[in-house]
Amino acid sequence: MSNKTRIRVGITHGDINGIGYEVILKTFENSEMFEICTPIVYGSPKAAAYHRKALEMEVAYNAIESTEEAQDGKLNILNCNGDDLHIELGTSTPEAGEAAFKALEQAVNDYKEGKIDVIVTAPINKSAIQSEQFHFPGHTEYLQECCGGEEKALMILCSGELRVAVATSHMALRDIPEAITPELLEEKITLLDRSLKEDFNIDAPKIAVLSLNPHAGDNGLLGEEEIKTISPTIRKMNEGGIFCYGPFAADGFMGSGKYAEFDAILAMYHDQGLVPLKTLAMNDGVNFTAGLSIIRTSPAHGVAFDIAGKGVADENSFRQAIYAAIDIMRNRNMYNQARRNPLRKLYFEKRDDSNKLNLQQNDNDI
Amino acid sequence: MSNKTRIRVGITHGDINGIGYEVILKTFENSEMFEICTPIVYGSPKAAAYHRKALEMEVAYNAIESTEEAQDGKLNILNCNGDDLHIELGTSTPEAGEAAFKALEQAVNDYKEGKIDVIVTAPINKSAIQSEQFHFPGHTEYLQECCGGEEKALMILCSGELRVAVATSHMALRDIPEAITPELLEEKITLLDRSLKEDFNIDAPKIAVLSLNPHAGDNGLLGEEEIKTISPTIRKMNEGGIFCYGPFAADGFMGSGKYAEFDAILAMYHDQGLVPLKTLAMNDGVNFTAGLSIIRTSPAHGVAFDIAGKGVADENSFRQAIYAAIDIMRNRNMYNQARRNPLRKLYFEKRDDSNKLNLQQNDNDI
Repeated sequence: MSNKTRIRVGITHGDINGIGYEVILKTFENSEMFEICTPIVYGSPKAAAYHRKALEMEVAYNAIESTEEAQDGKLNILNCNGDDLHIELGTSTPEAGEAAFKALEQAVNDYKEGKIDVIVTAPINKSAIQSEQFHFPGHTEYLQECCGGEEKALMILCSGELRVAVATSHMALRDIPEAITPELLEEKITLLDRSLKEDFNIDAPKIAVLSLNPHAGDNGLLGEEEIKTISPTIRKMNEGGIFCYGPFAADGFMGSGKYAEFDAILAMYHDQGLVPLKTLAMNDGVNFTAGLSIIRTSPAHGVAFDIAGKGVADENSFRQAIYAAIDIMRNRNMYNQARRNPLRKLYFEKRDDSNKLNLQQNDNDI
Repeated sequence: MSNKTRIRVGITHGDINGIGYEVILKTFENSEMFEICTPIVYGSPKAAAYHRKALEMEVAYNAIESTEEAQDGKLNILNCNGDDLHIELGTSTPEAGEAAFKALEQAVNDYKEGKIDVIVTAPINKSAIQSEQFHFPGHTEYLQECCGGEEKALMILCSGELRVAVATSHMALRDIPEAITPELLEEKITLLDRSLKEDFNIDAPKIAVLSLNPHAGDNGLLGEEEIKTISPTIRKMNEGGIFCYGPFAADGFMGSGKYAEFDAILAMYHDQGLVPLKTLAMNDGVNFTAGLSIIRTSPAHGVAFDIAGKGVADENSFRQAIYAAIDIMRNRNMYNQARRNPLRKLYFEKRDDSNKLNLQQNDNDI
């Protein structure tokens, strides 16, 4: 956390031809937002002005050239793109891809320098943003790379008490069965369990694991991954003290409302997890990248080129993404504070028989 | 249709250890059901008695030994299984599998002989029912076989105005990409289009086609099936006069509510279609096997071993399956009647110049 009183939320503007600026402007049209955070939009004041005009909105913003100029109580928009930015609403352009990348890059740098506390990303067009520097299927993978090789990311979609993580995310369907290995599932279940504890403040989380095949493979009739990979991994994790259950057939599990009994669901692939979540909660769904030191959330929707500039985009998912980022930061701080300073170990002075606790001695000396 | 006044609904009892009898008994507890149909349950009066007792219900039924004994206004239960049937609630047993198969086999035979008008199937346990005679992943494939090699089946899940068909159904996930060929998609889109016209009485149906890969493949970044197979097939079908659109990324398509603009959705695989449908409509979802001369529907749920015999199963989906079967039969009859007797072609008597229409001449002679 930075030293400022208000939580500093770095917002990347995403694809300038989509609905990113619309949801940003609509969110901060409500001045109450400034009471819980200070937003810094990594983007382009020129693009913001374009969208504001197209949408006939009157929300004020503070155009800045460096993060240090950001002021509390204002919608700060940091110029990451120079003044020459061409907008083509509803179209994928290389220029928009580059602008999205520059904003993201600068936000990550500022995060590393402690200038912002969390990152909320507006949606990008994943093919427009591809370049030599950005060769990832999405934000999640890029941020994992930015955090170094040690940290592994896990995509969690949240809406209220419903949390859905995906074992594989941006991957062609034909590559999924090979990717579902015991090692991968162990990694994802462990990450999910840890995130539920640290980021969502749940003491003994219960995790439901979905099956890869329809009908959970019907005892091997429809695929053997459940028998050979998923069930043994669940048992192993149980032995290690993680409360995970399944594998459950996805359709019945969602349809019966059983998901309400669990703190989170691990889906095997993108559409299996995101389809039901978005079906239930498109307008307040939040995507959270767990497992990284960077706290990053985003709305559940995409660039929505079909409605760009029309004023009909719903900003609720974006607003929820900001709330979620702030909640997660607070939960993580609480978790760390509670565990930072455990009771000092008692020890004995070896030089005498006094048997007293020496409070002067530094813990690190023990 | 049989010659009886009431529509004769053949109901197969499915797995006797599941919730099949519970939803059947609950449905016909309401005597109004007998005003729209005469039910003939292919099953076991003994099993029905067992469940009735376990559930402490009082619904009356008419135990019969042959279809001819069935009476209007009664819940007829035809004994297909002898008197020696052992029930183990919530358990998969070979005996239950055999009982499910015998009921299904007899219902199909009776249908072929015109003794019943439609078939509604209670859920089976797909691994228990496997035998030399039944080596299919589900009802759909078995019925397709019963109808001979000519007819191709298409699984459509319905709930109100939401209809979801699946291009591949009971198939391991790893086999799906190879199965999605232009030929398969053409077949399924054509079947769906025809079923919407004939079975659902929709004149110029609009069909949405979902993508195989997440994000509709993101222009090839996440798989090439959309570019190489799905999009070209959609264009070809459009040229042939079928209104189909896409491919749409499944999560955004469902989340944005765009599905409401279409008469039906073609999902690429089981979970992609059934997860959102069941999430929205588990309790009134109906599964319809389109494309066959047999009209067969079933509830969207499965055997639900976990709640078997507990009295908590919701019968609404099963009741909707009966309504749907009756509606589809009527729509199909209307469609065929409207097209059975088109205006006779005018022709000229070649032997004279009278130029008159000869109404005595049989159409077949032309």
